[in-house]
Amino acid sequence: MRRISIFGATGSIGQNTIDLIARDRDAYQVVALTGGRNIARLAQDAIRLGAAVAVTAHDDLLGELRDALAGSNVEAAAGEAALTEAASRPADWVMSAIVGAAGLPPGLAALEQGATLALANKETLVAAGPLVMQAARDSGSTILPVDSEHSAVFQALVGEDLAAVERVVLTASGGAFRDRPLKTLHSATPAEAATHPNWDMGQRITIDSASMFNKALEVIEAREYFGLSPEQIEVLIHPESTVHALVGFNDGAMMAHLGAPDMRHAIGYALHWPDRRALPVARLDLAKLGQLTFSAPDTARYPALDLARQVMQRGGLAGAAFNAAKERALDGFIAGRIGFMQMAEVVGEVLDRLDARSGHIDAAFSLDNILQMDHLARSEADNVMARRQQ
Amino acid sequence: MRRISIFGATGSIGQNTIDLIARDRDAYQVVALTGGRNIARLAQDAIRLGAAVAVTAHDDLLGELRDALAGSNVEAAAGEAALTEAASRPADWVMSAIVGAAGLPPGLAALEQGATLALANKETLVAAGPLVMQAARDSGSTILPVDSEHSAVFQALVGEDLAAVERVVLTASGGAFRDRPLKTLHSATPAEAATHPNWDMGQRITIDSASMFNKALEVIEAREYFGLSPEQIEVLIHPESTVHALVGFNDGAMMAHLGAPDMRHAIGYALHWPDRRALPVARLDLAKLGQLTFSAPDTARYPALDLARQVMQRGGLAGAAFNAAKERALDGFIAGRIGFMQMAEVVGEVLDRLDARSGHIDAAFSLDNILQMDHLARSEADNVMARRQQ
Repeated sequence: MRRISIFGATGSIGQNTIDLIARDRDAYQVVALTGGRNIARLAQDAIRLGAAVAVTAHDDLLGELRDALAGSNVEAAAGEAALTEAASRPADWVMSAIVGAAGLPPGLAALEQGATLALANKETLVAAGPLVMQAARDSGSTILPVDSEHSAVFQALVGEDLAAVERVVLTASGGAFRDRPLKTLHSATPAEAATHPNWDMGQRITIDSASMFNKALEVIEAREYFGLSPEQIEVLIHPESTVHALVGFNDGAMMAHLGAPDMRHAIGYALHWPDRRALPVARLDLAKLGQLTFSAPDTARYPALDLARQVMQRGGLAGAAFNAAKERALDGFIAGRIGFMQMAEVVGEVLDRLDARSGHIDAAFSLDNILQMDHLARSEADNVMARRQQ
Repeated sequence: MRRISIFGATGSIGQNTIDLIARDRDAYQVVALTGGRNIARLAQDAIRLGAAVAVTAHDDLLGELRDALAGSNVEAAAGEAALTEAASRPADWVMSAIVGAAGLPPGLAALEQGATLALANKETLVAAGPLVMQAARDSGSTILPVDSEHSAVFQALVGEDLAAVERVVLTASGGAFRDRPLKTLHSATPAEAATHPNWDMGQRITIDSASMFNKALEVIEAREYFGLSPEQIEVLIHPESTVHALVGFNDGAMMAHLGAPDMRHAIGYALHWPDRRALPVARLDLAKLGQLTFSAPDTARYPALDLARQVMQRGGLAGAAFNAAKERALDGFIAGRIGFMQMAEVVGEVLDRLDARSGHIDAAFSLDNILQMDHLARSEADNVMARRQQ
């Protein structure tokens, strides 16, 4: 029996992970399940899977969780410290699918205790890449990417020598505004931006797809994950979202990963790695698809990609600042405080301001400093947006 | 220094292999180079590369070869037995690029002495698959495919478990007549058929591309090479010839190999395997290509694909018969004795006639019986064509 824990169990990645585990219940011993405000779902899954502990991130919901777990053998816990404590409990495989910077401490704790970390939390690598990769090296743990692009790259690299990699190409659908006239983008609404052509995802990530902030984060992640230089990472618009990524080697060969847009590909691959096991996902029929199209992204339409380059060149805590400022700018766009194209302007301005203040972005690379930078960049983003509204 | 031999050194695959070797001359010790009627080229390359022996397949050209090698340290030899003798000389890596059934005995000899066999000769696997794979197992040798499709499959399988393979998809350009009205194909000329949209190859293989006899051979090869069942191998029309093959796994993932149409991809991969080394080939620019298109092959247009299925179902020496009958039918088409669409009819008729004669296709799987079947199927094909002309 493999001991597994799922952080962010009530979100879509967590639920898909549970779906796969429930199909082969006897193979797994569930250590911890964690969630946010959806206590009913968390408790129900924890009881169903026989988890040792269920944790909600919110201290104020501990009572509710205790009530929901009453009569079961599942322990209840709440709060940030409890999340990290749960991640420290011995497990063979841990899914890190908590959204936001809150996912970072439990991810690190899971790596430190030697678990294989299935990583869906973007902040872990964007904000804390060197710290996290070092933790994995120190404990001999493996980090397995759980998003379609990085899982695709990882799969294309199986059995290959990283030294032979010339470039990595991440594909992007181009999002809701791929074909919308550029000069009308300033008036794009959150509802328009939250319509994704291929993937059924939450509102925030779908807007991040329209702005390509999501792809910008993935570029930074790929850099950390695979130890690449910024120049080795390319982004290619591919509206069909069928080719998830390509790896170009020094002999001119490119290996690509293709699949139907279904997050269970990457989740299942991480769950069964290093094996492949049958997954209940649709098979590709390329003859039926007919064509796959590709184009270079327009940096005027997708300024977030240039910001990602700046962040990678800048190094230090710029990744943490970038991600945090992006989150607040996205809040601002959803709240109607700034326009769609202003998100990148706000993030760029925050990066410039933090860069100008000595000691901040170049502070030592520690978990504390990363979380501090997260807070700082958020408040800077609020300041920048407030000034723009005056 | 790796000891290498090149069989079929004066053809395009042999010349491209020499081109790659000549770029890193000190890494290789050339044992044998062999060729056909192009004695000047053979001798010049043998002297330049310091080969131990040069062999022409034609006994009558021994004197000419001796003269061309005069004053060098390169030994001269000629004829079938000399080819096999040269293949028995210890080498680490042997390129088998002789066209036709004549390539089979030296290929087997190379495997038997334990060399890694870079295999460009189609007959080796189509006619003698089980024999050749067994020889490789017996000596612990590796066979590396040297055509773009099988090299692509091989590369997609690096680090993967064959048991997880669900299907292999070989792509086909569709050849010269992909878009020509079906009912006009009976009047297609050899010159029209010999125009390939993507690859610059010889006349015979380009016609085989238009008829998809080439792809039919590759399907049979893939079956032997990767130990697949006939149902696991699909053919997909892909006019851009950019995706060379795809492997579909049991988790729904497909790994594809892409590259510019350049045979040095597969040659270089086989030469440097298990490593990848920088190759002087063009890099793919998918944004520039813009689109990749796919469609299912029409079996009325490409009856050779159905014949391949019959051959695989039939087993035994059907592969040897198929290949030999195809060669003669192709001769007949080039000579104007039969029409383009009649090639498949002739081959189908030969298979049926041989199948009806007991003991032939089910004869024991030996090199002698394979070569005998090759001769028999050729003469049957001649008979069938002669009857059609009466």
